Amino acid sequence: MKKINFKDKFEKFTDQWSPKVVAEMNNYQFKLVKIQNDFIWHKHDDTDEVFIVMDGKIFIEFESETVELDQGEMIVVKKGVKHRPFSKEEACIMLVEPKDVVNTGEKVSELTAPNDQWI
Amino acid sequence: MKKINFKDKFEKFTDQWSPKVVAEMNNYQFKLVKIQNDFIWHKHDDTDEVFIVMDGKIFIEFESETVELDQGEMIVVKKGVKHRPFSKEEACIMLVEPKDVVNTGEKVSELTAPNDQWI
Repeated sequence: MKKINFKDKFEKFTDQWSPKVVAEMNNYQFKLVKIQNDFIWHKHDDTDEVFIVMDGKIFIEFESETVELDQGEMIVVKKGVKHRPFSKEEACIMLVEPKDVVNTGEKVSELTAPNDQWI
Repeated sequence: MKKINFKDKFEKFTDQWSPKVVAEMNNYQFKLVKIQNDFIWHKHDDTDEVFIVMDGKIFIEFESETVELDQGEMIVVKKGVKHRPFSKEEACIMLVEPKDVVNTGEKVSELTAPNDQWI
Protein backbone atom coordinates (compact mmCIF):
# COMPACT_ATOMS: atom_id res chain seq x y z
CA MET A 1 0.00 0.00 0.00
CA LYS A 2 2.15 2.79 -1.34
CA LYS A 3 1.15 6.42 -1.54
CA ILE A 4 1.43 8.43 -4.75
CA ASN A 5 2.78 11.98 -4.77
CA PHE A 6 1.46 13.80 -7.83
CA LYS A 7 4.31 16.36 -8.00
CA ASP A 8 6.93 13.61 -7.90
CA LYS A 9 5.13 11.69 -10.62
CA PHE A 10 4.76 14.72 -12.91
CA GLU A 11 8.53 15.26 -12.64
CA LYS A 12 9.13 11.80 -14.12
CA PHE A 13 8.03 12.63 -17.67
CA THR A 14 7.97 15.49 -20.15
CA ASP A 15 6.03 14.18 -23.15
CA GLN A 16 2.62 15.66 -23.82
CA TRP A 17 -0.72 13.94 -24.54
CA SER A 18 0.67 10.61 -23.34
CA PRO A 19 -1.16 9.41 -20.22
CA LYS A 20 0.93 7.79 -17.48
CA VAL A 21 -0.79 5.43 -15.06
CA VAL A 22 -0.05 6.07 -11.38
CA ALA A 23 -2.71 3.96 -9.68
CA GLU A 24 -5.35 1.34 -10.26
CA MET A 25 -8.62 1.01 -8.31
CA ASN A 26 -10.59 -2.09 -9.25
CA ASN A 27 -10.58 -1.93 -13.08
CA TYR A 28 -10.13 1.85 -13.20
CA GLN A 29 -6.91 3.77 -13.68
CA PHE A 30 -5.67 7.17 -12.51
CA LYS A 31 -3.54 8.67 -15.27
CA LEU A 32 -1.41 11.82 -15.25
CA VAL A 33 -1.03 13.74 -18.48
CA LYS A 34 0.74 16.90 -19.58
CA ILE A 35 -1.15 18.66 -22.34
CA GLN A 36 -0.59 21.70 -24.54
CA ASN A 37 -2.14 23.03 -27.75
CA ASP A 38 -4.83 21.10 -29.59
CA PHE A 39 -6.10 17.56 -29.26
CA ILE A 40 -8.48 15.90 -31.72
CA TRP A 41 -12.24 15.56 -31.52
CA HIS A 42 -13.17 12.14 -30.18
CA LYS A 43 -15.58 10.27 -27.93
CA HIS A 44 -15.66 7.20 -25.72
CA ASP A 45 -18.73 5.14 -26.53
CA ASP A 46 -18.45 2.81 -23.55
CA THR A 47 -17.54 5.01 -20.63
CA ASP A 48 -17.65 8.36 -18.88
CA GLU A 49 -14.26 10.03 -18.43
CA VAL A 50 -13.06 12.30 -15.61
CA PHE A 51 -10.67 15.23 -16.09
CA ILE A 52 -9.12 16.84 -13.00
CA VAL A 53 -6.85 19.86 -13.46
CA MET A 54 -3.80 19.53 -11.22
CA ASP A 55 -1.88 22.56 -12.51
CA GLY A 56 -2.63 25.23 -15.12
CA LYS A 57 -5.74 25.80 -17.18
CA ILE A 58 -7.37 23.65 -19.85
CA PHE A 59 -10.38 23.91 -22.11
CA ILE A 60 -12.72 21.18 -23.28
CA GLU A 61 -14.68 21.98 -26.39
CA PHE A 62 -18.05 20.29 -26.78
CA GLU A 63 -20.37 20.66 -29.74
CA SER A 64 -22.48 23.23 -27.90
CA GLU A 65 -19.97 25.01 -25.64
CA THR A 66 -16.38 25.22 -24.46
CA VAL A 67 -15.69 24.69 -20.76
CA GLU A 68 -12.68 26.31 -19.11
CA LEU A 69 -11.15 24.35 -16.24
CA ASP A 70 -8.59 25.72 -13.80
CA GLN A 71 -6.46 24.03 -11.19
CA GLY A 72 -8.76 22.50 -8.55
CA GLU A 73 -11.59 21.82 -10.96
CA MET A 74 -12.91 18.65 -12.56
CA ILE A 75 -15.49 17.57 -15.10
CA VAL A 76 -17.15 14.30 -16.05
CA VAL A 77 -17.42 13.87 -19.81
CA LYS A 78 -20.37 11.54 -20.28
CA LYS A 79 -19.97 8.52 -22.51
CA GLY A 80 -20.60 9.04 -26.18
CA VAL A 81 -20.15 12.82 -25.98
CA LYS A 82 -17.79 14.30 -28.56
CA HIS A 83 -15.13 16.48 -26.98
CA ARG A 84 -11.83 18.13 -27.78
CA PRO A 85 -9.43 19.08 -24.96
CA PHE A 86 -6.88 21.82 -25.51
CA SER A 87 -4.73 24.23 -23.58
CA LYS A 88 -2.75 27.31 -24.46
CA GLU A 89 0.11 26.75 -22.03
CA GLU A 90 1.22 23.38 -20.71
CA ALA A 91 -1.17 22.05 -18.08
CA CYS A 92 -1.02 19.00 -15.84
CA ILE A 93 -4.18 16.92 -15.55
CA MET A 94 -5.37 13.63 -14.09
CA LEU A 95 -7.75 11.32 -15.92
CA VAL A 96 -9.87 8.69 -14.21
CA GLU A 97 -11.34 6.03 -16.47
CA PRO A 98 -11.49 2.26 -17.05
CA LYS A 99 -8.08 0.75 -17.71
CA ASP A 100 -8.58 -0.06 -21.38
CA VAL A 101 -9.63 3.40 -22.55
CA VAL A 102 -7.65 4.80 -25.49
CA ASN A 103 -6.88 8.53 -25.31
CA THR A 104 -8.21 9.29 -28.79
CA GLY A 105 -11.39 7.26 -28.31
CA GLU A 106 -12.79 5.91 -31.59
CA LYS A 107 -10.11 7.71 -33.64
CA VAL A 108 -6.60 6.59 -34.48
CA SER A 109 -4.15 9.43 -35.03
CA GLU A 110 -0.57 10.44 -34.39
CA LEU A 111 -1.82 11.51 -30.96
CA THR A 112 -3.02 8.00 -30.09
CA ALA A 113 -0.87 7.00 -27.12
CA PRO A 114 0.06 3.52 -25.93
CA ASN A 115 -2.05 2.33 -23.05
CA ASP A 116 -1.06 1.17 -19.58
CA GLN A 117 2.19 3.16 -19.36
CA TRP A 118 2.98 3.13 -15.63
CA ILE A 119 5.33 5.55 -13.95
CA MET B 1 -21.68 18.98 -18.60
CA LYS B 2 -20.91 21.14 -15.60
CA LYS B 3 -17.51 21.58 -14.04
CA ILE B 4 -16.92 21.09 -10.32
CA ASN B 5 -14.77 23.49 -8.31
CA PHE B 6 -13.43 21.69 -5.23
CA LYS B 7 -12.91 24.86 -3.13
CA ASP B 8 -16.48 26.01 -3.77
CA LYS B 9 -17.82 22.58 -2.85
CA PHE B 10 -15.80 22.35 0.38
CA GLU B 11 -17.27 25.72 1.44
CA LYS B 12 -20.77 24.23 1.25
CA PHE B 13 -20.48 22.03 4.34
CA THR B 14 -18.81 21.89 7.73
CA ASP B 15 -19.67 18.46 9.13
CA GLN B 16 -16.86 15.95 9.46
CA TRP B 17 -16.71 12.29 8.37
CA SER B 18 -19.78 12.73 6.21
CA PRO B 19 -18.96 12.24 2.51
CA LYS B 20 -20.62 14.58 0.01
CA VAL B 21 -20.95 13.44 -3.57
CA VAL B 22 -19.84 15.96 -6.19
CA ALA B 23 -19.69 13.82 -9.32
CA GLU B 24 -20.56 10.44 -10.75
CA MET B 25 -18.58 8.58 -13.43
CA ASN B 26 -20.30 5.40 -14.61
CA ASN B 27 -21.21 3.72 -11.30
CA TYR B 28 -18.43 5.43 -9.33
CA GLN B 29 -18.70 8.51 -7.17
CA PHE B 30 -16.30 11.32 -6.27
CA LYS B 31 -16.95 12.33 -2.66
CA LEU B 32 -15.52 15.22 -0.66
CA VAL B 33 -15.06 14.75 3.07
CA LYS B 34 -13.73 16.84 5.94
CA ILE B 35 -12.07 14.70 8.57
CA GLN B 36 -10.50 15.27 11.97
CA ASN B 37 -9.49 13.04 14.87
CA ASP B 38 -10.12 9.31 14.83
CA PHE B 39 -12.22 7.13 12.57
CA ILE B 40 -12.96 3.46 13.25
CA TRP B 41 -11.20 0.38 11.90
CA HIS B 42 -13.12 -1.03 8.96
CA LYS B 43 -12.76 -2.62 5.54
CA HIS B 44 -14.60 -2.81 2.23
CA ASP B 45 -14.86 -6.42 1.12
CA ASP B 46 -16.08 -5.68 -2.39
CA THR B 47 -13.98 -2.78 -3.60
CA ASP B 48 -10.77 -0.83 -3.56
CA GLU B 49 -11.07 2.75 -2.27
CA VAL B 50 -9.10 5.84 -3.27
CA PHE B 51 -8.13 8.64 -0.87
CA ILE B 52 -6.81 11.91 -2.34
CA VAL B 53 -5.69 14.65 0.07
CA MET B 54 -6.94 18.02 -1.16
CA ASP B 55 -5.87 20.08 1.87
CA GLY B 56 -4.03 19.29 5.10
CA LYS B 57 -2.50 16.03 6.26
CA ILE B 58 -4.09 12.69 7.07
CA PHE B 59 -2.93 9.32 8.29
CA ILE B 60 -4.21 5.88 7.39
CA GLU B 61 -3.38 3.17 9.87
CA PHE B 62 -3.07 -0.36 8.50
CA GLU B 63 -2.35 -3.45 10.55
CA SER B 64 1.34 -3.36 9.61
CA GLU B 65 2.06 0.36 9.20
CA THR B 66 0.67 3.88 9.25
CA VAL B 67 0.87 5.94 6.07
CA GLU B 68 1.04 9.74 6.24
CA LEU B 69 -0.56 11.58 3.32
CA ASP B 70 -0.15 15.26 2.59
CA GLN B 71 -1.92 17.55 0.17
CA GLY B 72 -1.23 16.35 -3.38
CA GLU B 73 -0.95 12.70 -2.42
CA MET B 74 -3.24 9.74 -2.90
CA ILE B 75 -3.45 6.09 -1.95
CA VAL B 76 -5.47 3.09 -3.09
CA VAL B 77 -6.68 0.99 -0.18
CA LYS B 78 -7.14 -2.48 -1.65
CA LYS B 79 -10.38 -4.31 -1.05
CA GLY B 80 -10.63 -6.32 2.12
CA VAL B 81 -7.76 -4.46 3.81
CA LYS B 82 -8.50 -3.19 7.32
CA HIS B 83 -7.73 0.50 7.71
CA ARG B 84 -8.35 3.40 10.03
CA PRO B 85 -8.07 6.98 8.74
CA PHE B 86 -7.36 9.79 11.17
CA SER B 87 -6.03 13.32 11.23
CA LYS B 88 -4.83 15.66 13.93
CA GLU B 89 -6.12 18.87 12.38
CA GLU B 90 -9.06 19.12 10.00
CA ALA B 91 -8.17 17.90 6.53
CA CYS B 92 -10.09 17.93 3.26
CA ILE B 93 -10.03 14.75 1.20
CA MET B 94 -11.66 13.25 -1.87
CA LEU B 95 -12.77 9.61 -2.03
CA VAL B 96 -13.32 7.72 -5.26
CA GLU B 97 -15.31 4.50 -4.98
CA PRO B 98 -18.42 2.72 -6.26
CA LYS B 99 -21.61 4.60 -5.45
CA ASP B 100 -22.99 2.22 -2.87
CA VAL B 101 -19.96 2.11 -0.57
CA VAL B 102 -20.66 2.86 3.10
CA ASN B 103 -18.02 4.96 4.87
CA THR B 104 -17.64 2.57 7.81
CA GLY B 105 -17.49 -0.54 5.61
CA GLU B 106 -18.72 -3.65 7.40
CA LYS B 107 -19.23 -1.78 10.69
CA VAL B 108 -22.21 0.24 11.83
CA SER B 109 -21.34 3.02 14.27
CA GLU B 110 -22.26 6.57 15.14
CA LEU B 111 -19.79 7.54 12.40
CA THR B 112 -21.77 5.67 9.72
CA ALA B 113 -22.90 8.40 7.33
CA PRO B 114 -25.89 8.41 4.97
CA ASN B 115 -24.94 7.58 1.41
CA ASP B 116 -25.47 9.54 -1.79
CA GLN B 117 -25.50 13.02 -0.18
CA TRP B 118 -24.95 15.36 -3.13
CA ILE B 119 -23.79 18.92 -2.81
